[in-house]
Amino acid sequence: MKNLADKKRCVVLLSGGIDSSTTLAVALAENFFPFAISFDYGQRHIYELVAARKIAESMKVNQTVTMKVDFRQIGGSALTDDLDVPKHRTTGEISSGIPVTYVPARNTIFLSYALGWAEVIGAHDIFIGVNAIDYSGYPDCRPEFIKAFENMANLATKEGVEGRYFTIHTPLIAMTKADIIRKGYDLGVDFSLTHSCYDPAPDGKACGGCDSCLLRKKGFNEAGIPDPTKYAEQE
Amino acid sequence: MKNLADKKRCVVLLSGGIDSSTTLAVALAENFFPFAISFDYGQRHIYELVAARKIAESMKVNQTVTMKVDFRQIGGSALTDDLDVPKHRTTGEISSGIPVTYVPARNTIFLSYALGWAEVIGAHDIFIGVNAIDYSGYPDCRPEFIKAFENMANLATKEGVEGRYFTIHTPLIAMTKADIIRKGYDLGVDFSLTHSCYDPAPDGKACGGCDSCLLRKKGFNEAGIPDPTKYAEQE
Repeated sequence: MKNLADKKRCVVLLSGGIDSSTTLAVALAENFFPFAISFDYGQRHIYELVAARKIAESMKVNQTVTMKVDFRQIGGSALTDDLDVPKHRTTGEISSGIPVTYVPARNTIFLSYALGWAEVIGAHDIFIGVNAIDYSGYPDCRPEFIKAFENMANLATKEGVEGRYFTIHTPLIAMTKADIIRKGYDLGVDFSLTHSCYDPAPDGKACGGCDSCLLRKKGFNEAGIPDPTKYAEQE
Repeated sequence: MKNLADKKRCVVLLSGGIDSSTTLAVALAENFFPFAISFDYGQRHIYELVAARKIAESMKVNQTVTMKVDFRQIGGSALTDDLDVPKHRTTGEISSGIPVTYVPARNTIFLSYALGWAEVIGAHDIFIGVNAIDYSGYPDCRPEFIKAFENMANLATKEGVEGRYFTIHTPLIAMTKADIIRKGYDLGVDFSLTHSCYDPAPDGKACGGCDSCLLRKKGFNEAGIPDPTKYAEQE
């Protein structure tokens, strides 16, 4: 095993969910030295940040930073406002189109911070666990957005301008949730530490009914891997 | 005069310096209804934020927001770290190349927040007072960066994806500091309220010796307009 100091540094966006945790595992498997960046954006599910910390610890990633991003000041999403998170308990149907949980410019803001940190620590690789299959409703999860961000990043920065280009890695972009779960499982991700629910109970238990819980259940089911999640009791 | 409600909304990045204050005046002159966004990024010169507020008030702009951006957590610039701000008192020479005051991904982060706010308030126009002449050292002040950001923004957002495109306006991009001062003067900007200094005295007075003060003095001088700035006494 190479010494950490010999490895290429990278920045990994880590939310504590299945996707970003698997992405972190991919970065490690590709022999990078990961620096994990998380965002405290007044999300209802602060449990995400706890999960992100546990996941980073479980993978022995010590370089972490949590940036405060106050989306509430600029408003506009069910994840940060007092709008209701849509539930589909009766039908189990997942929303189509751009969901109400869309946060304006979220991944743009997150990647911008990751870019700034990458430049400071001398990393030229940024990993983000977006996927265009199960989250096709979010414009900022599509490959064309990622490509445009990368292009912009290389014009925005000292490093890019001087020819040391940034690459945005999206190892999950073409995977279904089941593919991602299989991948993470193979790489040893402890999914019991991850958090997905948009609307958890006060004790942190996943609701089992929001879009994110439905995707998670469906993913484990299709992957043929037992779901370690403790869901709140169904009504 | 049109009613505010009939005007097109826009977001203006307002730092309280000459450039952003003139940019705000341009947006008003172009008959936009401006929403001003400022950033509290642990800058030494907190006087900037005071200036931004005064400028907004003086132009009767009531829709304002200040976003906290903690660059210190990701490190890396003389404006936010404890590095020394370069002084050139003896020679009056302005630095060349990418300055030590460069903040990684700063304008990328600022524009990303502006984009998020714009989408929420229904604006499709964002004004930023970058210029590529006097600040050519900053990669994120160049037209190619702005164009790349605009392209990315239209792929990142619900609005862009649905064909209601964002435009990033850079009315000052090809102007010298003297041009900008003349423009602002003609539009009635009260420059006595603006703040430029990177390293002000404890009472808020401009140092007169940093790059930013030198550019300011030179600009007023070349514009043939009296500089209303109160500089700290020269040694």
